[in-house]
Amino acid sequence: MAKRDGNTGVAPSVIAIVSGGLDSTVMLQWAVSRGSVVEVVTFDYGQRHRREIDSARCAASRLGLRHDVVDLSFLGALYRGGGGALLGDVAVPDGHYADESMKATVVPNRNAIMLSIAVGVAIARKAPMVAYAAHAGDHAIYPDCRPVFASAMDVVARLADWHEVGIERPFVAMTKAQIVRIGSDLSVPMHQTWSCYKGGDVHCGTCGTCVERREAFAVAGVEDLTVYA
Amino acid sequence: MAKRDGNTGVAPSVIAIVSGGLDSTVMLQWAVSRGSVVEVVTFDYGQRHRREIDSARCAASRLGLRHDVVDLSFLGALYRGGGGALLGDVAVPDGHYADESMKATVVPNRNAIMLSIAVGVAIARKAPMVAYAAHAGDHAIYPDCRPVFASAMDVVARLADWHEVGIERPFVAMTKAQIVRIGSDLSVPMHQTWSCYKGGDVHCGTCGTCVERREAFAVAGVEDLTVYA
Repeated sequence: MAKRDGNTGVAPSVIAIVSGGLDSTVMLQWAVSRGSVVEVVTFDYGQRHRREIDSARCAASRLGLRHDVVDLSFLGALYRGGGGALLGDVAVPDGHYADESMKATVVPNRNAIMLSIAVGVAIARKAPMVAYAAHAGDHAIYPDCRPVFASAMDVVARLADWHEVGIERPFVAMTKAQIVRIGSDLSVPMHQTWSCYKGGDVHCGTCGTCVERREAFAVAGVEDLTVYA
Repeated sequence: MAKRDGNTGVAPSVIAIVSGGLDSTVMLQWAVSRGSVVEVVTFDYGQRHRREIDSARCAASRLGLRHDVVDLSFLGALYRGGGGALLGDVAVPDGHYADESMKATVVPNRNAIMLSIAVGVAIARKAPMVAYAAHAGDHAIYPDCRPVFASAMDVVARLADWHEVGIERPFVAMTKAQIVRIGSDLSVPMHQTWSCYKGGDVHCGTCGTCVERREAFAVAGVEDLTVYA
């Protein structure tokens, strides 16, 4: 099991959950820059913003990493209307990411599902760690982004198998602006990442995540090469 | 959200995870007998024993309950050889269920994945509870059947959303023989449930779960109407 048919021929040290958004793409390159042997997993919830998944493919390919896209689009039908805007049930709200309206973008229990599958991958490949890019701005809106939830998931991951897996959130104490700064230092092509919830040809510039993204570049003092509508 | 298009027109009180095996089928009928409004979720891991899924359909249909089958067969490809016998990689071992050889039947992190999705369903449908049929004989073999794992999952489920979901394991302190006794008392057609890991036309009678099943009927003093090869 330890030796496999990946790019490196060795067991990965990290299974990185990468959406193709800014935070997770920076995290991915950050992990690689530290010498980790990384494999990438992306989850497809049948979102409107499939452009994000293309960005994840692009990042994994650029770094020469094994990449699996896990199709969870069945959750939409399963939840039958309880899935929120990301599963295409209601209109994506405009406004600031931290607004009440953004609660509509929650896919019920997405983080537990995503982390559980990533931990399964880590167990199967004997990787000691799963990493994802939760940051300090997330937990006000999404209950399953709160630190208390993440700690509980970490306990579950360590108990799930005789092969213990830890869940790391390297950016958990950082703001999005700090993540942009790291991305800039590592020369991550951040304009190739995708944040917009609307999934047009270019970023809309007005939805919650676009507003948050623009603010982060502004606060970080990093030039934003993203094309906005 | 509370009112929906199910059989009853009301929100469920329990989302029951039913494999179609003996334990979960008895649990399902037990929950219904106590007046719970139950919806059934079955997970398809691409196992060899699809007969088990047919048995779950049969039980849900007999009781007139909404039933969703969630296709998780993609885990086999995702895990690439790390999935164990249930995903069709290695031969199913004969022998006693509690033997070392039965470790080959583990699907990495299956319980966390299954429970996380069921909790997502419960959140989406405003059900307060997920139930599954872990019993006292499970936890020696499967790390994710241990009580300590289940407690950790319960914490995760309660934190995952502002709508709190509990995870119940009503048979956790019981032996399989005690479950057979409950099934007998409730007149559950237990011979229609499926245990065999080999998935032939009839139960093989010799694989680990068949041996365990036969023992349970014998110990319970209940006539076993199952047809064995």
